Amino acid sequence: MPKLSDFKLVTSPLPSPGPGECLVRGVYLSLDPYMRGRMDDRKSYAESVQLGQVMVGQVVGRVVASRHPGLQPGDPVVGNLGWQDQAVAPAESLTRVDPGQESLSTTLGILGMTGLTAYFGLLHVCQPQAGETVVISGAAGAVGSTVGQIAKIKGCRVVGVTGSQAKARYLREQMGFDAALVWGSESDGPHRLASACPDGIDVYFDNLGGAVTDAVVNLLNLKARMAVCGQSSQYNLDRPEQGSRWLRNLIVKRAKIQGFLVWDFAAEHAQALRQLQDWLGASRLRNREHVVEGIENAPGAFIEMLEGRHLGKYLVRLSPE
Amino acid sequence: MPKLSDFKLVTSPLPSPGPGECLVRGVYLSLDPYMRGRMDDRKSYAESVQLGQVMVGQVVGRVVASRHPGLQPGDPVVGNLGWQDQAVAPAESLTRVDPGQESLSTTLGILGMTGLTAYFGLLHVCQPQAGETVVISGAAGAVGSTVGQIAKIKGCRVVGVTGSQAKARYLREQMGFDAALVWGSESDGPHRLASACPDGIDVYFDNLGGAVTDAVVNLLNLKARMAVCGQSSQYNLDRPEQGSRWLRNLIVKRAKIQGFLVWDFAAEHAQALRQLQDWLGASRLRNREHVVEGIENAPGAFIEMLEGRHLGKYLVRLSPE
Repeated sequence: MPKLSDFKLVTSPLPSPGPGECLVRGVYLSLDPYMRGRMDDRKSYAESVQLGQVMVGQVVGRVVASRHPGLQPGDPVVGNLGWQDQAVAPAESLTRVDPGQESLSTTLGILGMTGLTAYFGLLHVCQPQAGETVVISGAAGAVGSTVGQIAKIKGCRVVGVTGSQAKARYLREQMGFDAALVWGSESDGPHRLASACPDGIDVYFDNLGGAVTDAVVNLLNLKARMAVCGQSSQYNLDRPEQGSRWLRNLIVKRAKIQGFLVWDFAAEHAQALRQLQDWLGASRLRNREHVVEGIENAPGAFIEMLEGRHLGKYLVRLSPE
Repeated sequence: MPKLSDFKLVTSPLPSPGPGECLVRGVYLSLDPYMRGRMDDRKSYAESVQLGQVMVGQVVGRVVASRHPGLQPGDPVVGNLGWQDQAVAPAESLTRVDPGQESLSTTLGILGMTGLTAYFGLLHVCQPQAGETVVISGAAGAVGSTVGQIAKIKGCRVVGVTGSQAKARYLREQMGFDAALVWGSESDGPHRLASACPDGIDVYFDNLGGAVTDAVVNLLNLKARMAVCGQSSQYNLDRPEQGSRWLRNLIVKRAKIQGFLVWDFAAEHAQALRQLQDWLGASRLRNREHVVEGIENAPGAFIEMLEGRHLGKYLVRLSPE
């Protein structure tokens, strides 16, 4: 688990934008579980951040100065600017934010990587059908709670697995989940999961891994589909955890497991965003955010996110909108 | 591991065929790894065989007496008649063997369930492309060696993992594998597998599970595909073996794992059989059989198959062809 002393706040001179570049003032920084992986030196789908480098992260903000004809001062943009208040970046690495969006923050969340991750992982990888049972681990996270809501729109029975009674209540009462159960240190988790899924499990959206996933595999229905989005139960371990081998169950159930990244579906992002925006506009999706003020509070908020302290999408407000 | 004393040879009066039934004299009984699962009381895709029941198994034989107009005495048929010399069965549960087949035995092997399992698991589940690296565990088994040959027909680099130097040589010299390595108790298996797969692994056909599969997962390429056909390293364990959790790798590589059964593709069997027959006829596939004589030797041969003592498809000759 990262600790505050692993981070350092550094003030450095702001460079001027060169040809084709923009200076951007950040408004919101997104905090996401994937960042934990970038703090490792294990091989992953992207380069690790080196010690002393600026931590990576998506920022939505406004152009302050531009040396590219396509962007003007004041334009709202999103880009991978990292954990910084202001940054200079090539204009081509920035995406102008659709002015129809109600708030800049949604660009980083439900109408951004969070919403797209939920959308493609559930709909493209798992292809849920109406009436099927969908289980989500890490269900109260920003991605998990969006997955559950989309599954409800598609007519599924939705069961969330989460870390506290308050979160379970939130999922049932505010996010429309049919059931939500707390996975704690008690050994009756598998039994309670089975009770919450009387018809077995057709679709599993995994943010967590570990014992929850083992229990799900034992309850799979024929032709079940599992999307592996995250394995956050494993990220802070020094060495891989040991668990029961269960590949045999995949034969018995002719089930499929697939890992995915939201970027694999880049060609379809625009279309998915229109769908998410429609659902949000029609109040079929609810968006919840947890916002902390100031870049100096980003490390603490990131650690709280890994600990699952608060609900919804974690954002750091870098400057007034 | 089953032992000889778990089996009993019983002689019982032969019933006469009723209306719609046939009496069949068995010629060959197929021995297959899936049978081990039927000897368990664990939940699986099919009912377990109860103590005292006739063990299940596919038999090819000839009709002796028929009370169904579609079958005549002398007709060659295949059906799930179990481990018996002769049996009475409903004609509708029997399939007449294509008279074009060179020998009755291939109906149980390369032109039967064995060949179809290899065909669908490799081509439909894994969709290998020319130039990709295909790894097969349990490679010298009847299914595994067929998978490797089909992968070679499709232009892949084929690497087999097997249990002895003799089998590795057989795969390289007789089955056309590009490489074959022995997985023993030494700890350098993962390293040797990596050396045999300098371009990583695109496709994995898993008959074995356990440590070999763990090592494969560490070498997967982007968008790799794994078919789970068997987990024979796990079948004789009292409780599931513990292993490192590696689902995170599926995210990193956006890889897919899928369990399958040959019966899932029943609608396409006829077409696949024509393709297998063409390849066999053109000597692009080689067929190897290990035949033991007499039903009384079936238990011993079955145990030898689980131990991997001999090469090729295991058959018991029940009577002269």
